[in-house]
Amino acid sequence: MRSETSKSPSELRALFRRNKLVAPTAGLAKGYAQANLAMLPRELAFDFMLFAQRNPKPCPVLDVIEADSCEPTVVAPGADIYTDIPLYRIYQHGVLTAEVKDLKNFRKKGLVGFLLGCSFSFETALLNAGLPVRHIEENCNVPMYITNMACTPAGIFHGPMVVSMRPMPPSMVVRSTLVTARFPAVHGAPVHIGDPGQIGIRDINRPDFGDSVTIKPGEVPVFWACGVTPQAVAMAVKPEIMITHAPGHMFICDVRDEDLAVF
Amino acid sequence: MRSETSKSPSELRALFRRNKLVAPTAGLAKGYAQANLAMLPRELAFDFMLFAQRNPKPCPVLDVIEADSCEPTVVAPGADIYTDIPLYRIYQHGVLTAEVKDLKNFRKKGLVGFLLGCSFSFETALLNAGLPVRHIEENCNVPMYITNMACTPAGIFHGPMVVSMRPMPPSMVVRSTLVTARFPAVHGAPVHIGDPGQIGIRDINRPDFGDSVTIKPGEVPVFWACGVTPQAVAMAVKPEIMITHAPGHMFICDVRDEDLAVF
Repeated sequence: MRSETSKSPSELRALFRRNKLVAPTAGLAKGYAQANLAMLPRELAFDFMLFAQRNPKPCPVLDVIEADSCEPTVVAPGADIYTDIPLYRIYQHGVLTAEVKDLKNFRKKGLVGFLLGCSFSFETALLNAGLPVRHIEENCNVPMYITNMACTPAGIFHGPMVVSMRPMPPSMVVRSTLVTARFPAVHGAPVHIGDPGQIGIRDINRPDFGDSVTIKPGEVPVFWACGVTPQAVAMAVKPEIMITHAPGHMFICDVRDEDLAVF
Repeated sequence: MRSETSKSPSELRALFRRNKLVAPTAGLAKGYAQANLAMLPRELAFDFMLFAQRNPKPCPVLDVIEADSCEPTVVAPGADIYTDIPLYRIYQHGVLTAEVKDLKNFRKKGLVGFLLGCSFSFETALLNAGLPVRHIEENCNVPMYITNMACTPAGIFHGPMVVSMRPMPPSMVVRSTLVTARFPAVHGAPVHIGDPGQIGIRDINRPDFGDSVTIKPGEVPVFWACGVTPQAVAMAVKPEIMITHAPGHMFICDVRDEDLAVF
């Protein structure tokens, strides 16, 4: 049997569907886009969709699974969002109440699913361009910070933008901007370059989420909008029910990273 | 009094609001984006928004006015979508029933407004780049065609993509692609270059909407996704009520064309 790393997205999803593999998806199906999941009750779907439309950098919508469907028709036709992620999290009124391997009990509950672009895709582009991705080098989680940049509100949803940070040597700052600008569907170009204080970050060595990484002498912190933003915003209204992927256990799309590039 | 052509977007909207000026908006507030309006009942808003999300080239959403608001907070804070367009059209069950100068009778009716990018913005970019825009040269309407390219359906909405066509000398085809690619919020790069038959157009001299324009010997027809698509798609389901701007009588934004460029 071939190792997991050589399997196609649909082969991997089939393993997840039968609960034959329950593991983080980093490094699997290289070259294919992975996505964050947020499922919300139908009544909140328009406001959430509008929030994403108004805040495309932190909230890049790759696909929407309608309430009467289970299929991500755009990024993975034939897949089933209720079974094809290795591990899910159930939140009730904003509180994590369960981690489950499938959502079979949640079919026909009127949930709308949102698949949101994940930074794995643009990190692949950075690495391909020969640019450093420090948290990969240091084998830890990317540092993330709550900023003083307000998202544009929509309906009941509002909140600050969360950013991720990757330090770059000064000579690579422009290239890191251009390389990621090709991928607006996965957060796109940076939202800030340089002084953390200007976007409300007090201590760059103390991220709000994830891990601190080394910033070498002379390196410039470069900040990208982060997919934690929409989850934090959705969670803040404490919906009766909200379902997400478990951290690191992403939905693997049939769409390649390069398919998401605009130029 | 200064002529209309030197007035700012907010000055012009104030004239429209008081019905002091009822005229097509082409040529007004040069450099500022203009937008198409589609207002639909709240019950259809999510499906329409999702249709736009899945079909961003024909349906570029610039702003959404929520059902309990009148204000396009993104593109024109302080403006009133119910009064600030020179002329509106009311459709009931898909039939044009009235043309009116304001929508004061439609407040609090639970309508959601969508402002959609308009090709005026990218035509300005084409002209600035020294590229020909034939229907402007010939002082007529842009030719538009129903294609065999299906939009990605969403909920109750589906239909073919409508395109507009501008002929280019072969030496200018690439440049016209690059120049318009900067403006994904107003239809972006072309969807097809060359043979009209490949996208289901039988006779390039007989557009489905607008006027036929001269294609000079050797010129290549270049096709862009067209804002008629979302209106046609919305109209096709014959909603109880749907309100649009009257053709050519657009909403003038505070956002400049260049603000919509991605690079």
